[in-house]
Amino acid sequence: MVAFGGNALLRAGQKGTFAEQMANVEEACRGLLPLLEQGCGLVIGHGNGPQVGNALLRHEAGAAQFGLQAMPMDFCGAETQGSIAYMIETAMERVLKQARISRPVVSLVTRVEVAADDPAFENPTKPVGPYYKECPSDGATYRADPAGRGWRKVVASPKPLAISNIELIEQLARQGYIVVCTGGGGIPVVRDENGRHGVEAVIDKDLACSLAAAKMHADEFRIMTDVPKVCINFHKPGEKALDRLTLDEARKYLADGEFAEGSMAPKIRAAISFLESGGKECIISETTITSC
Amino acid sequence: MVAFGGNALLRAGQKGTFAEQMANVEEACRGLLPLLEQGCGLVIGHGNGPQVGNALLRHEAGAAQFGLQAMPMDFCGAETQGSIAYMIETAMERVLKQARISRPVVSLVTRVEVAADDPAFENPTKPVGPYYKECPSDGATYRADPAGRGWRKVVASPKPLAISNIELIEQLARQGYIVVCTGGGGIPVVRDENGRHGVEAVIDKDLACSLAAAKMHADEFRIMTDVPKVCINFHKPGEKALDRLTLDEARKYLADGEFAEGSMAPKIRAAISFLESGGKECIISETTITSC
Repeated sequence: MVAFGGNALLRAGQKGTFAEQMANVEEACRGLLPLLEQGCGLVIGHGNGPQVGNALLRHEAGAAQFGLQAMPMDFCGAETQGSIAYMIETAMERVLKQARISRPVVSLVTRVEVAADDPAFENPTKPVGPYYKECPSDGATYRADPAGRGWRKVVASPKPLAISNIELIEQLARQGYIVVCTGGGGIPVVRDENGRHGVEAVIDKDLACSLAAAKMHADEFRIMTDVPKVCINFHKPGEKALDRLTLDEARKYLADGEFAEGSMAPKIRAAISFLESGGKECIISETTITSC
Repeated sequence: MVAFGGNALLRAGQKGTFAEQMANVEEACRGLLPLLEQGCGLVIGHGNGPQVGNALLRHEAGAAQFGLQAMPMDFCGAETQGSIAYMIETAMERVLKQARISRPVVSLVTRVEVAADDPAFENPTKPVGPYYKECPSDGATYRADPAGRGWRKVVASPKPLAISNIELIEQLARQGYIVVCTGGGGIPVVRDENGRHGVEAVIDKDLACSLAAAKMHADEFRIMTDVPKVCINFHKPGEKALDRLTLDEARKYLADGEFAEGSMAPKIRAAISFLESGGKECIISETTITSC
């Protein structure tokens, strides 16, 4: 199981054209070639932070300019699953063809179940979407931006409990399919008396991919990010890049506050969670994968 | 194989809120219950006309208001595959639960291959997206609106040649999965020397679903629409609703211009195409399905 960062696909500093994004996605896919040349099974998850942010802005602008409905965040997240999966499928197919590897690629829309009573819902912390001059009164939670840019919606980041169609994802991967799924951490749904329904929330994509990896008994879980190695004393005197961490060391450094929230800490938590669920190895790196 | 109309999900005259759309999708899914109660295999395709129209407007508005990139039509189509599949999956799961039927639902992002030299590309006819005061000079084809609303992009409507992962879709359907795929007629891709890449085009969803139905050897192909029966002399003196048409009759009426372009004619063509490919029966109707 490999998790691409949403920032690796839609990069800060670029305009974000379709051609740029496709080139980024191709580069990310090319990084997986060593795995594919060895015939490894492969499931790809991905983030959608910048993409769903843009989707929310587009919905806001479409409402202002054309009177369209601004759809909720779960809907926007589903949109990004479609568009990012389309780019990954297309790019991966091209990378495979160039490398003369014949492997089918398939992308599944993925809902991820969270608990309706997850404590995260009582204290939403994740800011999403546009800034508003006045606090909207639509029942959602808004916080005033400390930098004075206005009011912004905050949503919960609940814990992923179940990945839809995970048995099928495992079965397809073991049949040789490269499976794209769990986009943006999955579309969050909660159970009610009549089934499940979507909620406005953000599931950490690394945690969701970690759960997917554990549930399908993946040997390895790789989190692709923009630093070559996990560091302690990151950006401080005594900064040290770590080649290898045991589970106990990871827990200790995490408890010591060595890893920044919203950055490395959730990746370490996802790694710990994978190993605690029986996974053998988690690799957090930007570098090209060289073995499986 | 059942094809939902995009208009049935996002209806004219409604505001288009998420709750309205979910209610429409649930109603469409409930119409399939008789099929499911009999244990029929089921693959659901769907249109995306109004949805991709809104997506293009949102991209336009996002560019104007926030300086975001307006992404191409294939990207927007992929977005609608994600969001509509999410709604169908969720609604279908609820409908199944209420009916105490246990069937898994899975949604696949679907690319559909068209020929780069399809004659449709020489004469794009399908107007899409917003109106512009002046004709943009971005290489795409624009036409002046006859009603004077401005310039609008026109794209080709090429013939679908191959549905990505169609063998897998058939396999899943035969295993009992309800498969959602071929959204909006599929994301159009053409072959080049390095694989396939997306193009701005609209594949008729009924034709794409017809091809999918034929390729997976579906017994029946049902096109859900907003009239109860196919008519000749439609909205004219001597209007007659038809209960049953042979393949020859369908060809004759189509040649006689009995069916309106952009409305019933493409559905009849899709039906003819399915039957010519070995399909047994095609049903075009708004009514609840009662047998399989």
